[in-house]
Amino acid sequence: MTTADYEIDHELSDKEENIHNAWDNELDPVLTVEPGEVVRFECRDALDGQVGPDSGVEDLANASFDPVHPLTGPVAVEGAEPGDALVVELLDFEHKGWGFTGFMPGEMGLGLLPEEFEEAGLYVWDLAGETAEFVNGIEIPVDMFPGTIGNAPAQAGEHDTLPPRDVGGNMDVKQMTAGSTVYLPVEVEGALFSTGDCHVAQGDGEVCVTGIEAPMFVTARFGLKKDAGFAQPQLETTGPFTATGEDEPMYGTTGISDDLMEATKKAIRHMIDHLEREHDLTRGEAYILCSAAVDLKISEVVDAPNWTVTAYVPESIFPEN
Amino acid sequence: MTTADYEIDHELSDKEENIHNAWDNELDPVLTVEPGEVVRFECRDALDGQVGPDSGVEDLANASFDPVHPLTGPVAVEGAEPGDALVVELLDFEHKGWGFTGFMPGEMGLGLLPEEFEEAGLYVWDLAGETAEFVNGIEIPVDMFPGTIGNAPAQAGEHDTLPPRDVGGNMDVKQMTAGSTVYLPVEVEGALFSTGDCHVAQGDGEVCVTGIEAPMFVTARFGLKKDAGFAQPQLETTGPFTATGEDEPMYGTTGISDDLMEATKKAIRHMIDHLEREHDLTRGEAYILCSAAVDLKISEVVDAPNWTVTAYVPESIFPEN
Repeated sequence: MTTADYEIDHELSDKEENIHNAWDNELDPVLTVEPGEVVRFECRDALDGQVGPDSGVEDLANASFDPVHPLTGPVAVEGAEPGDALVVELLDFEHKGWGFTGFMPGEMGLGLLPEEFEEAGLYVWDLAGETAEFVNGIEIPVDMFPGTIGNAPAQAGEHDTLPPRDVGGNMDVKQMTAGSTVYLPVEVEGALFSTGDCHVAQGDGEVCVTGIEAPMFVTARFGLKKDAGFAQPQLETTGPFTATGEDEPMYGTTGISDDLMEATKKAIRHMIDHLEREHDLTRGEAYILCSAAVDLKISEVVDAPNWTVTAYVPESIFPEN
Repeated sequence: MTTADYEIDHELSDKEENIHNAWDNELDPVLTVEPGEVVRFECRDALDGQVGPDSGVEDLANASFDPVHPLTGPVAVEGAEPGDALVVELLDFEHKGWGFTGFMPGEMGLGLLPEEFEEAGLYVWDLAGETAEFVNGIEIPVDMFPGTIGNAPAQAGEHDTLPPRDVGGNMDVKQMTAGSTVYLPVEVEGALFSTGDCHVAQGDGEVCVTGIEAPMFVTARFGLKKDAGFAQPQLETTGPFTATGEDEPMYGTTGISDDLMEATKKAIRHMIDHLEREHDLTRGEAYILCSAAVDLKISEVVDAPNWTVTAYVPESIFPEN
């Protein structure tokens, strides 16, 4: 788990011939690598350029979901066989200076609280500085990771990229940062790895359905853990577990319910109330901030019949702190 | 949010007259305090002494649930009215040198994975040192908090203490540590606050149904936030968010499923597999360690139809690190 010296063995641009937008083990690999080799992937943003740095909310509201998610790959890894884990050392990420976070109208049914936001909302982030600047002086630390990272599934045919699966995919695990190692179950010969849908930052939960979405370069070293027998992905990481990398003041809300998803919704509703009341955000801005910077934890799943989910916002992102 | 100088205004021992084991707004307060006053509560452990420092697993397996949870209180706070939040500044915790973590036989149906553990398991912790020492040289940091902290509900009658409710109760939020401030919705005049079921440490999730359960002293200052209008509890905290208080190496497992509870179970099953394989623990020991030190996060709840839950164990608790 190190980002020590490395040399890039292969580069994959985001040109059309390197992009696909469904998981399919019949796709020909665009590159074949040996274990130990390093690949630099150029990745398009999740909406494939339909929202840009100068976009207004109508670009998001009118976006087509047909190209979602454009992924770079697949890369075949020599020697990878079903039952192995593909070892992906995440070495480096480089964004292109901007990103966006948005939510869609209610009828699309996306996000944790679709029924509570009838119109689309969009925030375009200028990433020229070291942090991602939001409204009201709020600044979010940059912690880049690939929202989607996975192998081709054994099941034949084309598979939607929206849900994650046993082989990984759209897991949105924000701790898959530079310096982390991800273990992805291999289900077909060569693994057929792809990545994309990168995020500049995200809260655990990604509640409005987008992190800070951004086109990005991803550099990774490949290896194999033979006969790992992992049913689903695993990882080694050093975080981020907080905004500053240290225990720090946070405001927390609880969601208590006999349904774990409803408890999650309650925790976020209460956090949106808090951000609206105490930090002068609109509900749409608060929803976006939750998706970009609020972390969801399962506090207990054993005190039947009610479970407790908590949502935490770091005070350090607000200008008064 | 400070543990600055304070004086104790009232002490409540754990004698029978100060203990109750159901929430009931008809209970007479054992103490009435004014906002600003500090109370030191002596709290019994969750099983009311049925497991002791010299217990074997049969004491847990044969324990009665009738006395669960013995709570100290209720305390009436002058001026507290429905719609307010009771402000509880947690100032200090002091355990009594030992604690226990255990799980119950399958037919009791307790814990996240009751069907996978047919016999009870128990670990008694010696807390003489600065950390809680487990098997195989594993050491867990001590971060004390009350598993149960709440007000009396408006609804008449006796209410089981196992589930948390809108007024709080058995929330098991491990970030309610010394230095934290908890806001508890008030539903009846005087609030009628009680606490107990204290934990020396716990992972987010408390998956085997117990943290490190321990008799403990809890010192808290009471205040009121008038007309707060909180639907469920909220808090200010500085953690713990990691074992060391800093971003640190962790091993993570994912649980991916179209049901959030099943995703949670998968993440913990995969973590138990990992702890068994890599750290030479029995499955029962691994289950106990998950409950005491593994944190559950909701990574995404928006990539329909599959959600991702992650479980993290800090490498710093193992002796080789």
